[in-house]
Amino acid sequence: MNDIPIGLAKSGRRAWALDDVNVTPSRRTRSPQDVSLDWRIDAYTFSMPVIGAPMDSVMSPATAIALGKLGGLGVLNLEGLWTRYEDPEPVIQEIAHLDALEISPSNTRRMQELYAEPIKAELIKARLAEMRDAGVVVSGSLTPQNTQEFYQTVVDAGVDMFVIRGTTVSAEHVSESRDPLNLKEFIYELDVPVIVGGAAGYTPALHLMRTGAAGVLVGFGGGSARTTHRALGIRVPMATAISDVAAARRDYLDESGGRYVHVIADGGLGSSGDIVKGLAMGADAVMLGAALARAEEAPGQGWHWGLEAVHPNFPRGHRTRVGTVASLEEVLLGPGHHTDGSSNLMGGLRHAMASCGYVDLKSFQRVAATVSPVGRG
Amino acid sequence: MNDIPIGLAKSGRRAWALDDVNVTPSRRTRSPQDVSLDWRIDAYTFSMPVIGAPMDSVMSPATAIALGKLGGLGVLNLEGLWTRYEDPEPVIQEIAHLDALEISPSNTRRMQELYAEPIKAELIKARLAEMRDAGVVVSGSLTPQNTQEFYQTVVDAGVDMFVIRGTTVSAEHVSESRDPLNLKEFIYELDVPVIVGGAAGYTPALHLMRTGAAGVLVGFGGGSARTTHRALGIRVPMATAISDVAAARRDYLDESGGRYVHVIADGGLGSSGDIVKGLAMGADAVMLGAALARAEEAPGQGWHWGLEAVHPNFPRGHRTRVGTVASLEEVLLGPGHHTDGSSNLMGGLRHAMASCGYVDLKSFQRVAATVSPVGRG
Amino acid sequence: MNDIPIGLAKSGRRAWALDDVNVTPSRRTRSPQDVSLDWRIDAYTFSMPVIGAPMDSVMSPATAIALGKLGGLGVLNLEGLWTRYEDPEPVIQEIAHLDALEISPSNTRRMQELYAEPIKAELIKARLAEMRDAGVVVSGSLTPQNTQEFYQTVVDAGVDMFVIRGTTVSAEHVSESRDPLNLKEFIYELDVPVIVGGAAGYTPALHLMRTGAAGVLVGFGGGSARTTHRALGIRVPMATAISDVAAARRDYLDESGGRYVHVIADGGLGSSGDIVKGLAMGADAVMLGAALARAEEAPGQGWHWGLEAVHPNFPRGHRTRVGTVASLEEVLLGPGHHTDGSSNLMGGLRHAMASCGYVDLKSFQRVAATVSPVGRG
Amino acid sequence: MNDIPIGLAKSGRRAWALDDVNVTPSRRTRSPQDVSLDWRIDAYTFSMPVIGAPMDSVMSPATAIALGKLGGLGVLNLEGLWTRYEDPEPVIQEIAHLDALEISPSNTRRMQELYAEPIKAELIKARLAEMRDAGVVVSGSLTPQNTQEFYQTVVDAGVDMFVIRGTTVSAEHVSESRDPLNLKEFIYELDVPVIVGGAAGYTPALHLMRTGAAGVLVGFGGGSARTTHRALGIRVPMATAISDVAAARRDYLDESGGRYVHVIADGGLGSSGDIVKGLAMGADAVMLGAALARAEEAPGQGWHWGLEAVHPNFPRGHRTRVGTVASLEEVLLGPGHHTDGSSNLMGGLRHAMASCGYVDLKSFQRVAATVSPVGRG
Repeated sequence: MNDIPIGLAKSGRRAWALDDVNVTPSRRTRSPQDVSLDWRIDAYTFSMPVIGAPMDSVMSPATAIALGKLGGLGVLNLEGLWTRYEDPEPVIQEIAHLDALEISPSNTRRMQELYAEPIKAELIKARLAEMRDAGVVVSGSLTPQNTQEFYQTVVDAGVDMFVIRGTTVSAEHVSESRDPLNLKEFIYELDVPVIVGGAAGYTPALHLMRTGAAGVLVGFGGGSARTTHRALGIRVPMATAISDVAAARRDYLDESGGRYVHVIADGGLGSSGDIVKGLAMGADAVMLGAALARAEEAPGQGWHWGLEAVHPNFPRGHRTRVGTVASLEEVLLGPGHHTDGSSNLMGGLRHAMASCGYVDLKSFQRVAATVSPVGRG
Repeated sequence: MNDIPIGLAKSGRRAWALDDVNVTPSRRTRSPQDVSLDWRIDAYTFSMPVIGAPMDSVMSPATAIALGKLGGLGVLNLEGLWTRYEDPEPVIQEIAHLDALEISPSNTRRMQELYAEPIKAELIKARLAEMRDAGVVVSGSLTPQNTQEFYQTVVDAGVDMFVIRGTTVSAEHVSESRDPLNLKEFIYELDVPVIVGGAAGYTPALHLMRTGAAGVLVGFGGGSARTTHRALGIRVPMATAISDVAAARRDYLDESGGRYVHVIADGGLGSSGDIVKGLAMGADAVMLGAALARAEEAPGQGWHWGLEAVHPNFPRGHRTRVGTVASLEEVLLGPGHHTDGSSNLMGGLRHAMASCGYVDLKSFQRVAATVSPVGRG
Repeated sequence: MNDIPIGLAKSGRRAWALDDVNVTPSRRTRSPQDVSLDWRIDAYTFSMPVIGAPMDSVMSPATAIALGKLGGLGVLNLEGLWTRYEDPEPVIQEIAHLDALEISPSNTRRMQELYAEPIKAELIKARLAEMRDAGVVVSGSLTPQNTQEFYQTVVDAGVDMFVIRGTTVSAEHVSESRDPLNLKEFIYELDVPVIVGGAAGYTPALHLMRTGAAGVLVGFGGGSARTTHRALGIRVPMATAISDVAAARRDYLDESGGRYVHVIADGGLGSSGDIVKGLAMGADAVMLGAALARAEEAPGQGWHWGLEAVHPNFPRGHRTRVGTVASLEEVLLGPGHHTDGSSNLMGGLRHAMASCGYVDLKSFQRVAATVSPVGRG
Repeated sequence: MNDIPIGLAKSGRRAWALDDVNVTPSRRTRSPQDVSLDWRIDAYTFSMPVIGAPMDSVMSPATAIALGKLGGLGVLNLEGLWTRYEDPEPVIQEIAHLDALEISPSNTRRMQELYAEPIKAELIKARLAEMRDAGVVVSGSLTPQNTQEFYQTVVDAGVDMFVIRGTTVSAEHVSESRDPLNLKEFIYELDVPVIVGGAAGYTPALHLMRTGAAGVLVGFGGGSARTTHRALGIRVPMATAISDVAAARRDYLDESGGRYVHVIADGGLGSSGDIVKGLAMGADAVMLGAALARAEEAPGQGWHWGLEAVHPNFPRGHRTRVGTVASLEEVLLGPGHHTDGSSNLMGGLRHAMASCGYVDLKSFQRVAATVSPVGRG
């Protein structure tokens, strides 16, 4: 399908980024106020299809709670600073006030040191308890590498939604040195719904769906896609990736006799327009990092970074300057005073859906799209 | 037609911007002075295929009159500052002298406040009367949202050409909360010819043609296409859009037994070269915003903004710096002293048509084109 | 051939710029010193396939003579400053020292004034005589508009090669207001070989070949292709244009029973790599403007402009800063001290031909090419 | 295959750069620590598929030894400053401290002078002896032009691996002025394995394989590909070139009844991501220039240049500022503190291979790729 000869011994699919595609109005329009953004996964209903990315610059217990109260799902990174430090505030302050360069080996070195502090089970419990006490849906994330060590702590602490998130998570991780996590058994035995990823295409996503996951994250993380690509040579153009995983959802729905696994676009959704296109390509919901890191309440104070940026021996992605634009409420629900799609994200989504004639998220996945690669100055 | 697989569950048409296409000379050349730029719509003949965009930075009653006297059609935005304020000059002065940043939340906030002033029916009448007294073709525009409330005022005041213009206007707007404008009935009952849009493609344009409109605007507004795309994920590459709507004109001509609906390119036509290409793609006329905002007489004084930029809760597009280059007459008719296609717009059109061997606008729609996407440094 | 649907009512050929294509080595290599750059047209043999563009910033009588002595063909613009002013030096000094901005209406206005001085027949004679006295091949150019008025003067003064050059020159210019030049009759009656253009593709070039021209210029002039495109919407991507005209040469060779009309790439050949690619696409020779305007002897003193930039009412292209790199001899023949292809142009050509295994210009037209559109940072 | 019409008389293959392609994870992941980077060529096994480019800014005898001790293969340029000067340090100091401009005729002129010093046979011997004494695999390079004069010196001095490297090296160099090197005879008679190139595609590489070479370098040298392209019009997009030469390797394997010739990507591999993609396209190993010139021990002290940049009469490529990032060990093996793929190159390769589910270099050549041309801001 769409295979391009790269050379006589190699070919590859043409893959499209969100920037390369557009959503297009058609014969009918609707009123923005008639649009419903309700999103339901497992037993939970949210009033917006938004998950806060489990990254220290985005989600603290406090911002996860705030997001939950606004109608989205906040996920706390259970391997971040909040579970490494009793009081992470000074550490975050230090990171937010490092040298203002984005690509800086000395910054990276200092961040690697700060993240060398071990994760503490009792802090995992405390943070999750804080979220539960606030009455929101409680969710935390672990990487596959640390899931076996800490999941029991998490389950005991009580979560409503468990997230396993790494740059690439496969259903079939093979390791010679240690016994890897068997996702299928793990998810089967767990009582709570699991969202797992990132997956970069049809096949890995289909295998993740077969593990019993409630949702699959689509993407290949690492903060800045540009530096990740320079470092690893891997790039997952999101329009193609989301659409491929949506095809896996459809095929798995048939194969499983009706289990609908949610497709969650995770990565590179920096503006309301990106959210619109991610959903148009077939996603059921979006996981937002940079877009929420711009909120006044965001821990990163205008900076944004992921766990990959502090990897002990091969950091990639980098601490990025995203700036601060408005309160979390304004960022999500407006009223907006920014013309670049950085505030009133849900208002933008409503307007786009209405302009194209759709009033619910599921049917909006059928909206017409055009392809016009960028670079047009 | 030209469908590209984006992913396994989504495909989209390849769509081209005006920047991606070129007009090409062929075997014959003509003399620029032999070229006629006459454009006739309904009972009116103009000596240039130019409509002034109903935006406060472009068209005041005075500039609409000036454009009419030069041979084009000026359209006043009947929801802009001239119908909200008895004396809009101080308001315009304030907007023109806001902080020079293009993307500025505080500017946007202030402009939202200034546009919160209600529209006044008596001002609509006064402004239109001023235009009529000047002896030019009188035209004003409303958005579909406000057409029902104000059209009777407009009709009573007397217009020669009625424009209904929104970012996306469909013949089939569905609303649960209020009874939407039924365009077909409305246009049928109205005595004056109506130009309506924006429409983004074949199907929505064909439906608009069936409402009885005399002309259809092609485009998807919002000032800066770049920020609109970031905010909404919607982009309408104009070369493809114009050509698609031209195909709707042709098909509707057959279907209606001979009603020729004019195709008017609206948006992103910033230079004489863009006008050339818009007409070459099949447009009968062009609606100009930024290109006329550069005139010395333009209200915006070198700044340019649309109604979308002051939307009360989801502004997009933004107040853009376009600069001032020459008098309106020089901008349109020369003689030019600018080598970048910003003055003597009609001279540029004449030269291009002559170079390609055409002497009238209709046959120029057949000119040969090539495709060569930009980004070539 | 290679037709792309732009929209439902328009399609266009994909056209490639020289920047989009590459020349590729193959199985054989040669030594640069074995390469011959000899170029023969009509009765004249040159030791390099280089024609100096008849532009005031490039060719004065003195630089045309210098180019001739180095082995190329210098062409004087017979409508430029040298035939308008007895002593053009102060005028050129003024232009070279105008405000350093490239796009400047006041500069354009002043240049328009300076070029408003009428052309004088006696100066045409004097300039051509100066070139003849120097013993080089004598060549001058007129635009089609002025050919009838001045060609007899030129013929009487004695030229070896006559050049008719405009932005677009067709064999079939239709004018209602005055009797246009009949190229076929004109060339038939003229005793000297004629080079004519610009032509932008197969059909116009074939018609020009049928007029009896010895050579056809391929391109669409105007100094800066970027501003010309903004002003006129016309762009002639040169790789495609040259190859198309080369096809016309081949077909006309058959149709005429053996008349070989030279294809001369004219426009946008700014570096030795561009010259290589122009010839690889099928050109027999190149007409150089900016590349020679960088010589220390060039009249423009580091600035470069064409007649289009001083058009009285619709200037386009613009006075461009090209800088000064070395003597004309070093620019053409080296030794080079510039790594960007701006000096030793013929050395670059030799090296490229040798790397690809070719030792003469005609067979180099068969060299393998690849397509890889730019924009790769 | 993949042929694109450029014009009516010319077509060319679509060729892709490494920047245009991506590597993609699939259904399985592995642990980075399970990945083996062992590379075996002829009798030698290396613990990383890395060859240091024989360029004076990268490889001195000392850095070649250091690279060898870290597990790679260092190659000394036997026509560089170390064999022209008894003590090259002051010369290198001068070059590293020339005017900081990248493109500078006076710098080029000075470098041309410094490289005009003749090569000395006794220095070749001394430098190779120094490397041999250090106990690493000894390798030096000559251009084809100088191979006949100096190879006996090299062989007598004793090398383990002989490298013949030029911008384009063909098996069939034709020269009228002197008897060219017959590669086939030369390699047949030589006792040591030979690596030869650059070759730019299937056919030239296949012919080089038939000479008996142990490895073929893929690429078209000259430091900066951008200035080389401007100077020569030649560009070899590496993704396509490597894949084509990999196809030649496969076909020659069959034709020769089992001789496996190594494909070595040489040029434009500036980050760990580029190395990943070079190997993914089919290379067995990579020759690194700029990536190693960034090491603290690199002779160039943050500057990087090749022999082409000092060509006596047609220099191209240029002295490029690459900066200094870390020790050679950190650059290759980490731990990394750079998020842009400039340190821990082998760590990046391990992570990418593991993410895609591969644990050895040969099978990684089968990894899935996607095509998404850059320019996406």
